Amino acid sequence: MNMLFISGSLRKESFNYKLLQMAVNHLGCGKENIVNSSEMNLPMYSGDIESAGMPEAVQTLANKIKAADALIIASPEYNYGISGVLKNFIDWVSRVRPMPLSAKPILLMAASASNIAGIRGLWHTRVPLEGLGNFIYPKMFSVGDCFNAFEGDKFKQETLNDQFKATLEEFVAYVKKCS
Amino acid sequence: MNMLFISGSLRKESFNYKLLQMAVNHLGCGKENIVNSSEMNLPMYSGDIESAGMPEAVQTLANKIKAADALIIASPEYNYGISGVLKNFIDWVSRVRPMPLSAKPILLMAASASNIAGIRGLWHTRVPLEGLGNFIYPKMFSVGDCFNAFEGDKFKQETLNDQFKATLEEFVAYVKKCS
Amino acid sequence: MNMLFISGSLRKESFNYKLLQMAVNHLGCGKENIVNSSEMNLPMYSGDIESAGMPEAVQTLANKIKAADALIIASPEYNYGISGVLKNFIDWVSRVRPMPLSAKPILLMAASASNIAGIRGLWHTRVPLEGLGNFIYPKMFSVGDCFNAFEGDKFKQETLNDQFKATLEEFVAYVKKCS
Amino acid sequence: MNMLFISGSLRKESFNYKLLQMAVNHLGCGKENIVNSSEMNLPMYSGDIESAGMPEAVQTLANKIKAADALIIASPEYNYGISGVLKNFIDWVSRVRPMPLSAKPILLMAASASNIAGIRGLWHTRVPLEGLGNFIYPKMFSVGDCFNAFEGDKFKQETLNDQFKATLEEFVAYVKKCS
Repeated sequence: MNMLFISGSLRKESFNYKLLQMAVNHLGCGKENIVNSSEMNLPMYSGDIESAGMPEAVQTLANKIKAADALIIASPEYNYGISGVLKNFIDWVSRVRPMPLSAKPILLMAASASNIAGIRGLWHTRVPLEGLGNFIYPKMFSVGDCFNAFEGDKFKQETLNDQFKATLEEFVAYVKKCS
Repeated sequence: MNMLFISGSLRKESFNYKLLQMAVNHLGCGKENIVNSSEMNLPMYSGDIESAGMPEAVQTLANKIKAADALIIASPEYNYGISGVLKNFIDWVSRVRPMPLSAKPILLMAASASNIAGIRGLWHTRVPLEGLGNFIYPKMFSVGDCFNAFEGDKFKQETLNDQFKATLEEFVAYVKKCS
Repeated sequence: MNMLFISGSLRKESFNYKLLQMAVNHLGCGKENIVNSSEMNLPMYSGDIESAGMPEAVQTLANKIKAADALIIASPEYNYGISGVLKNFIDWVSRVRPMPLSAKPILLMAASASNIAGIRGLWHTRVPLEGLGNFIYPKMFSVGDCFNAFEGDKFKQETLNDQFKATLEEFVAYVKKCS
Repeated sequence: MNMLFISGSLRKESFNYKLLQMAVNHLGCGKENIVNSSEMNLPMYSGDIESAGMPEAVQTLANKIKAADALIIASPEYNYGISGVLKNFIDWVSRVRPMPLSAKPILLMAASASNIAGIRGLWHTRVPLEGLGNFIYPKMFSVGDCFNAFEGDKFKQETLNDQFKATLEEFVAYVKKCS
């Protein structure tokens, strides 16, 4: 299964990036399946740039999405909603033809400093992705208090490790059945 | 009254920018009150950039917001939600201390090519702005079918011109009373 | 396939009820698969009623949901959001144990008098249903200007008839593959 | 100032009702300003009932809203969204002519058993109320872990009592300035 991992944070030490790395490890994928921070660092969407020609960085991401069977996106909540970085990425990719970000199974995850754990942001993240026709897995994984939640490559709380692995495995089973 | 006008589209000929110009004209403000496209063209938000020092472009925008009595924001709907450009702007400004984007009266407007007129996008735009503590005017102005709606500096439909002016005047009266 | 059809409007001549009847006809289901208006006319949710014993009408609906392979819900938009009737139904059913409204594939449809066609309401309808763990089909069907849209048991516009049938057939194929 | 207090829960011992009583006490209003549970126990909205004549219970509530300078609504989150009880109330009142639930300043509060404290529900509650033209105060008050949060007529945590009183007083000052 070709799984593509995308972070809604550009910060190199982002906890959301860490979630993706843990997911890659658990699923036995390669690190090259994670879109890295510099690849995600697109220009802000502008119809003027688009008219002058789709940026190569956008086309590269679109090709990766097209090739993927499913996506796992980990993103922080910024200001009660979707990360602007992630929305700008979606806005760009939605302009590529043929449009690759459709009918993809997608699992959403969030790491957050607060105890609300980024879930409000993920609810806003569902909307553009579902509007484009993707299958967002109903269950979402989130971890709060992220500055204290991790220990090495794991969560301190064993129940959280179990929940993380179970969510990933359920999602993979869903992708296998429905794709 | 110091009114600041912000567009969620970077396109130079954007219909949302046109809405702002029409609002500036009707209210007798100066064109310098419109944040222009190059000022809005911020880097994508990254905690790493922030740690290295708040970008001057962000600080400049924050100062303009701080000085404003009220804001008028015109923004397209991108993919059923907020424009990534506008969200990235909010994400940056929300990190400036003291945080200026709070307790501001704000009027939202949208121009859109479809007949749904960008209203879905504005509902998502309310959330981060209200979450930060701003007073978003309940009534929002939107114009659909934007490629055919304008004639020079006006709308073709007279009722739309009346509605546009009435919304602006009600908003200004609200700002005067409540600020 | 056991498909259950639910309307978010209690009005006997509701256009949403009409959508369900057209769907039943196209799919070759029986009319008894439509939850009728009197069955949906539940008391308003109250923890006091629940403590005194789950109402029989709620348990009956819960049993129908449990037995269903998938659901088709047609609901009006009331005041920019979910119909209170439909939300009250969800609130009751979510209290039954074991909770049947989970992991069900669900297709959403709306008929609306305005040209925005009830889509804003459906976006709010997705949230509680997805939060409970159901698979809401990304594509939603909506018809605006409902007072003029129908002719007998069909839509006046042939393209709308085609789109309606295609949506139903795609959904059924999805249910077959993923259930 | 004529303040009207409304609960989105019908349960007699509801923690949201308790929040309203505490607010009444702090503001020196009378208990008769709280809409009681039996008044809120409306039939489910149906266009057929409406056609036969607006129910007296709805008209009575509409008159109370019309007479009020401002509203304080305390409501639980049910299934990640607005309480069906509260939405059904809004759906009914929105059909009364002249429609009284417009241009009212409204403060939203929530008590919740979880630590997310009902805030997701309040965000969905804002939408129909704002769509109808009301001024929803940006700041919302919520208390989580409600089974352990109260001690008599106060919160156990002194900081929560301070925050509660400050929110009420800020809201009253806003209503005085803007009405």
